[in-house]
Amino acid sequence: MRDVAVIGVGMTKFGELWGKSLRDIFVEAALAAIADAKVDHIDSMYVGNMSSGLFVEQEHLGAVLADYLGMGPIPATKVESACASGGAAFRQAVLEVASGASDIVLAGGVEKMTDSFDATAVLATAADQEYEAYYGVTFPALYAMIANAHMHRYGTTREQLAMVAVKNHENGSKNPNAQFRSLITIDDVLNSAPVADPLRLLDCSPVTDGAAAVIVCPMEIARQYTNSPVKVIASSQASDTIALHSRDDVTTLRAVAKAAERAYSMAGLKPENIDLAEVHDCFTIAEIVVTEDLGFFEKGSGGKAVELGWTQREGGKIPINTSGGLKSKGHPVGATGIAQIIELYEQLTGRAGERQVKDAHIGLAQNMGGSGASCVIHILQSV
Amino acid sequence: MRDVAVIGVGMTKFGELWGKSLRDIFVEAALAAIADAKVDHIDSMYVGNMSSGLFVEQEHLGAVLADYLGMGPIPATKVESACASGGAAFRQAVLEVASGASDIVLAGGVEKMTDSFDATAVLATAADQEYEAYYGVTFPALYAMIANAHMHRYGTTREQLAMVAVKNHENGSKNPNAQFRSLITIDDVLNSAPVADPLRLLDCSPVTDGAAAVIVCPMEIARQYTNSPVKVIASSQASDTIALHSRDDVTTLRAVAKAAERAYSMAGLKPENIDLAEVHDCFTIAEIVVTEDLGFFEKGSGGKAVELGWTQREGGKIPINTSGGLKSKGHPVGATGIAQIIELYEQLTGRAGERQVKDAHIGLAQNMGGSGASCVIHILQSV
Repeated sequence: MRDVAVIGVGMTKFGELWGKSLRDIFVEAALAAIADAKVDHIDSMYVGNMSSGLFVEQEHLGAVLADYLGMGPIPATKVESACASGGAAFRQAVLEVASGASDIVLAGGVEKMTDSFDATAVLATAADQEYEAYYGVTFPALYAMIANAHMHRYGTTREQLAMVAVKNHENGSKNPNAQFRSLITIDDVLNSAPVADPLRLLDCSPVTDGAAAVIVCPMEIARQYTNSPVKVIASSQASDTIALHSRDDVTTLRAVAKAAERAYSMAGLKPENIDLAEVHDCFTIAEIVVTEDLGFFEKGSGGKAVELGWTQREGGKIPINTSGGLKSKGHPVGATGIAQIIELYEQLTGRAGERQVKDAHIGLAQNMGGSGASCVIHILQSV
Repeated sequence: MRDVAVIGVGMTKFGELWGKSLRDIFVEAALAAIADAKVDHIDSMYVGNMSSGLFVEQEHLGAVLADYLGMGPIPATKVESACASGGAAFRQAVLEVASGASDIVLAGGVEKMTDSFDATAVLATAADQEYEAYYGVTFPALYAMIANAHMHRYGTTREQLAMVAVKNHENGSKNPNAQFRSLITIDDVLNSAPVADPLRLLDCSPVTDGAAAVIVCPMEIARQYTNSPVKVIASSQASDTIALHSRDDVTTLRAVAKAAERAYSMAGLKPENIDLAEVHDCFTIAEIVVTEDLGFFEKGSGGKAVELGWTQREGGKIPINTSGGLKSKGHPVGATGIAQIIELYEQLTGRAGERQVKDAHIGLAQNMGGSGASCVIHILQSV
């Protein structure tokens, strides 16, 4: 396998982009990435997208977007793994370059969610339609069950959940592309509208429009395009049961733990070698569970870790979601995994501005679908 | 890049499978492929599917199907390229094995179309939603425009279109997995209900439920599993404008021509070296145009070639759609590209029974999406 590098990135602002269509925002992000990488062509393209069919009644998204990007007749394929679609698209781009089939590949992600009349129902199609969604369960409810179990077993507190949101909004306040740049307090979270007990509105990532794109190429030619390529030192993916009720234990996410095990093995690293991580905080409880399953903290101590400030951007043992995470930056589901890679790229190349983490050399991105039935992990390193 | 081989295949009968769900039929096909390949595990899985979101309100299909197949925690990803989703899924499996990331990969395809109340509207999401589908154009109408232009420019006749359907039904009559095994006549086609002039009901592929799966592995270990591996000697993909009105010429499909050019170049072959081909006859006119753009016949002479019997299974210069094609075998859109690979595998290993083409060593599969905005081509060779 050839080594693969990220050589350029681009994204739209995340938010309620009423004046722009799905193809508009994808093209905006893709052109920004192409300009940033200074490539004069792309050989192939992957598009991470969860459900353009249900959100905007457009399938065949690879062809649509290659056409609107003016890049036909290149191969262009949509990749779907629910909210991990962006991570999965990045993985396919990495595999294609690694295989030797192509040199310059664009991995993008996009979701236009606000044009839909019922985003929650569309998102529920990432759960088990026959045994969960059909009976009315939504994702806030599924993650609420995880939160209740975690609080019951490990003593995780309602306030610790809130601290995840507070931290991520503080990070997002420094990110010009974030949907919500407002600072919030623990009381704001605790007093926000109940959604599914114990989760409240400010525990939930928002409904977002947005697109993101990165350019990858073989490591051996990366320096033709940039002085600061970022090497992909691990790419892994795993799955778990689609339905929460099929799992032995809902306080751990098997796909995250399995994908992490493979990723660390590929990179020859341990959790303590990671300088910062973007993780899938679709709900505050998700960040706590995931940081445990990634091995950053002991099982059950993820809440305590947040309380102790271990995940903060400044002074934290391992800064988590310096971009603002899904909570503050927004969560256009197909774009999220690519936006995570972009934050790592910005941090590892020293371009993260006010959010810059000092001495950041190795970053991990963890993107997951549904209630964790799929997980994609990448580890990137500055070279 | 490592050479890749197909070592086993499996599929469901195609048809109106009222008693089975999407996950049932996928698992049935996947288990058949696993048994046929005699593998004791799979490392990874791709699922070609166009629109399970709109057809059965289930996204996150990779994770759902890996779970129901009992294969968690393997990586499992859905790949979408409209009606070329199956071909695209096979291509991703080939790239993953070629890269060295995995050894035993399952490429499957599935579509459950008959559970939907309006399959034509779902299929129309593979066209340009904003400039075609929104205004009421459906795929029969788009291919009718292609047919009219082809008849006008090249003198292709209404009867020649019918001959494609007659031939494919004759082939399908020998295929136990085909949806329609009835023999039909030219008069049957000409007297069937008008759909979009000049296309009639028997010019159109049907709405179908079905699933198909194949197992690929590195060529170097293929003989551990089978005495008759089939080598993938070319994998290519290309795109074209999504909307028909954006094309300079609607009588040729640029994505097909471009993908074919690359595929022949990769394989070091010319069209005349191909012993048989499975092509995307979603409508009778599509087979005629595609066989021209693949270089089997001069531009404009595809209709004449059918009339002269050049595409017949017995005695033809190049047998086309020995499986029955989409027309007779059925067209569960996400599964079609995989089912094409299966027919080639059966033919190249001498397992095609009554449909067996003599001395078949090299086969080509051409799978396309929409009105040809995406095309995936594979060339397989017996070794």
